[in-house]
Amino acid sequence: MSHTARELAEYLGAGIEGDSSATVAGIASAETARAEDLIYSDSPKYMEAARKSAARCVIANPATRIAGKTILEAENPKFAFAKAAAWLAPKGAPKAGVHATAIIAAGARVDPRAFIGPYAVVEEEVEIGPGAEIGAFCFLGSGSKVGAECHLHPRVTLYAGARLGNRVVVHSGAVIGSDGFGYVFGEGRHWKFPQIGSVEIGDDVEIGANTTLDRGSLGTTRIGQDVKIDNLVQIAHNVRVGEHTAIAAQTGISGSSTIGIGVLIGGQVGIADHCTLEDGAIAGAQAGIPSGKTIRTGQTVWGTPARPLDRFKAQYAFFARLPELAARVRLLEQAQERG
Amino acid sequence: MSHTARELAEYLGAGIEGDSSATVAGIASAETARAEDLIYSDSPKYMEAARKSAARCVIANPATRIAGKTILEAENPKFAFAKAAAWLAPKGAPKAGVHATAIIAAGARVDPRAFIGPYAVVEEEVEIGPGAEIGAFCFLGSGSKVGAECHLHPRVTLYAGARLGNRVVVHSGAVIGSDGFGYVFGEGRHWKFPQIGSVEIGDDVEIGANTTLDRGSLGTTRIGQDVKIDNLVQIAHNVRVGEHTAIAAQTGISGSSTIGIGVLIGGQVGIADHCTLEDGAIAGAQAGIPSGKTIRTGQTVWGTPARPLDRFKAQYAFFARLPELAARVRLLEQAQERG
Amino acid sequence: MSHTARELAEYLGAGIEGDSSATVAGIASAETARAEDLIYSDSPKYMEAARKSAARCVIANPATRIAGKTILEAENPKFAFAKAAAWLAPKGAPKAGVHATAIIAAGARVDPRAFIGPYAVVEEEVEIGPGAEIGAFCFLGSGSKVGAECHLHPRVTLYAGARLGNRVVVHSGAVIGSDGFGYVFGEGRHWKFPQIGSVEIGDDVEIGANTTLDRGSLGTTRIGQDVKIDNLVQIAHNVRVGEHTAIAAQTGISGSSTIGIGVLIGGQVGIADHCTLEDGAIAGAQAGIPSGKTIRTGQTVWGTPARPLDRFKAQYAFFARLPELAARVRLLEQAQERG
Repeated sequence: MSHTARELAEYLGAGIEGDSSATVAGIASAETARAEDLIYSDSPKYMEAARKSAARCVIANPATRIAGKTILEAENPKFAFAKAAAWLAPKGAPKAGVHATAIIAAGARVDPRAFIGPYAVVEEEVEIGPGAEIGAFCFLGSGSKVGAECHLHPRVTLYAGARLGNRVVVHSGAVIGSDGFGYVFGEGRHWKFPQIGSVEIGDDVEIGANTTLDRGSLGTTRIGQDVKIDNLVQIAHNVRVGEHTAIAAQTGISGSSTIGIGVLIGGQVGIADHCTLEDGAIAGAQAGIPSGKTIRTGQTVWGTPARPLDRFKAQYAFFARLPELAARVRLLEQAQERG
Repeated sequence: MSHTARELAEYLGAGIEGDSSATVAGIASAETARAEDLIYSDSPKYMEAARKSAARCVIANPATRIAGKTILEAENPKFAFAKAAAWLAPKGAPKAGVHATAIIAAGARVDPRAFIGPYAVVEEEVEIGPGAEIGAFCFLGSGSKVGAECHLHPRVTLYAGARLGNRVVVHSGAVIGSDGFGYVFGEGRHWKFPQIGSVEIGDDVEIGANTTLDRGSLGTTRIGQDVKIDNLVQIAHNVRVGEHTAIAAQTGISGSSTIGIGVLIGGQVGIADHCTLEDGAIAGAQAGIPSGKTIRTGQTVWGTPARPLDRFKAQYAFFARLPELAARVRLLEQAQERG
Repeated sequence: MSHTARELAEYLGAGIEGDSSATVAGIASAETARAEDLIYSDSPKYMEAARKSAARCVIANPATRIAGKTILEAENPKFAFAKAAAWLAPKGAPKAGVHATAIIAAGARVDPRAFIGPYAVVEEEVEIGPGAEIGAFCFLGSGSKVGAECHLHPRVTLYAGARLGNRVVVHSGAVIGSDGFGYVFGEGRHWKFPQIGSVEIGDDVEIGANTTLDRGSLGTTRIGQDVKIDNLVQIAHNVRVGEHTAIAAQTGISGSSTIGIGVLIGGQVGIADHCTLEDGAIAGAQAGIPSGKTIRTGQTVWGTPARPLDRFKAQYAFFARLPELAARVRLLEQAQERG
């Protein structure tokens, strides 16, 4: 898709300075851009690269000027760039059709505008919506549902009954709807607590590579609309994640925890069972939140056990000075001994 | 399978109060139950939900009474519920047969009562026992063995020679028998230490989605009977895990560590190489156990480096009061200065 | 391959003592070795096992003597053993050919000496070099490249455009080239930051089971020659990893971090975005390196936030004695009160 800088500025609601008839056909980094690629710069340290770039159009903060370049002025250049990228992305004709090697059960309902790749397996009672793209080696267990315009990359497993909303993107190797980890020990062995619930994924969710989401035990594991989940994340049975929350790689959320709306969870965070993270809470990387704890709205926590970031920093500063503090106590004791 | 409350009480060895002829046909949560579903309540906070539930039969602590409900009295309602769930689970006719698209090597020995799903690949000398169910896209490397009534969900990889006992359940994406991480650096590069050992999984083990278990380097990685392993766990070469041990999600156990019987390991625990966790030890979530350490029988540890939980809590309490302690030292110093 | 002890000694540059005509045909542990297997011993605690072993040849430190055994004397027996193992490994005729069920796009360039297993999918413009082995269920996205003598175990995904050098080994379930985790929040929802870069893997790299490596956002994620990566590791967009670096299981490296040459990273380490680990740095298991930090050449760090190991140990020693320090401060206060 090719546009003029003026058309792009209108779409973005951006100011424009320089040649507004310049053509924009794609996006790139400053280093790799060709003349018709759009780039962005949101800090002085990137200005030099923008100046040297072959790109003719640059999204930048208002009042930025670069000789010979068309500037699209935006308060948040990175956001404007992401929005422009979505607009400029090549659309192509949507794929549709079922590969000859895909195995589709007789009772599955596959929209004719969906695409199903080689060696996919689609069991009974599965529903696949219009524009959905199901990659090679995907397994869609009986009764699972994939909404409109979802994109399942190759090798995604949906256990029976897992339900995805619309425009959900799932990366390779993710497993959705596996059994939760629940046992009761008795009579000398583990008895499996029933894991027969379901999992529901809202619209516009993205799920990373090799991430695992367990079905509910008796209830439902729910992921809200516009939630973004990175690679190798574990989400246990009966967890609820509110809309717009983002969860970075290798984080684990244990059974029955509730995560609010717009929560930010760093990488490798561990959230034990029955915790609550209220709306807008932030858990720093590697934080560990013990069983049953609540993190309040807007609070930022760090450490294991997790505590408010300010307190963590204060404690840590004293911790780092412990050798010195111990030496001062020793001096006081010596003074006392000397009497 | 449908039973009367009386039959179920006999099976469970539970007392019964109320209409013992009530029919029980399945299990559910109190909120979603229909009349013939069994529910359980083991604490006052769940009693209200049980009272409101459509379920006619409730497993509860002795002496519990709910008007209009049949009560099955059990000392441990959750355990009785899990046991009842196993008894009530629909059995159906076991699946058997080999899907037309499965590729079975001539020299594989597949029991006629086993089921092999679409696009499974079974190499030479593989053995598959009666009642085993091998899901779609499973890869069983040459010489691997799957015991009776195992259930491999779709997309499980067994490397050559991996051996599973009976009734082992493996969830989607798990990899069993991959090469351990062992190299010797010399002459300017890494040389791979041979990773030619094997992996043996005992009876009644369950292995979570996307979990990885490495084969031994020269020896054997062994997982004991009734061990339960959650999702995204890493178990390295030559590790031994004793019977009945449970390992929560995202935990990693490094090479040659020995885990005893009935050990409980929380989520995201890291156990370095050559550690020993004796029988009944407990490692809290995110604990880090340094190389070569031993955790004694029955001991509970937390933190990194891991230490006994009581000591962790005492140290942590003082840690949280460090700013106050430092202030007190300052006061003492000021008093001393004033002389 | 069968050799005499003398031939092996020459290959290794090792001294030899005892019957130099003894045959060596394979490698094993002392416990499982047969007469023609080679074993090694590099510490007194393994000498008894070596003595009892059926193996006739033992690699050991210079001047080691065991009655009836041929000793190959090496300064680093473990290294010599790894080198010998590579030399003795059965080569067999290399597999070649394309399985009848593999789906190869018309425009893919597959060397006739490569092997492609059952149910592999190879898209347009893929290049596969001589001697490469592509396992069952591998997915090679359009334009991806697999160099000479690579070995992709079953069920590896290469996203479009991912490039592997020569002799790269990738274990089952690994995903290479998935989208990075980058969004910009605006107008009430997440907008995906473009993830259209590439990933390049150098020669002689090994990548563990279920590990994930993201493509660059606009640039390139680069893994240097001879890097070794364990299972369940996450490497984010635009990360660079220098030659010979080793990364243990479940470690995560966030976006745009730069790892130098010969760095050692323990298990479950978390490295936030835009960090630098200079050449030869060492990060202990579970260390957490905050955003933007630099770890200097040769420095060893531990803890979260990561600090030099010596300082960590000193602080930790004082931490463990905090209850005692607090008691001493109390005594000083009491003395002061008594005045």
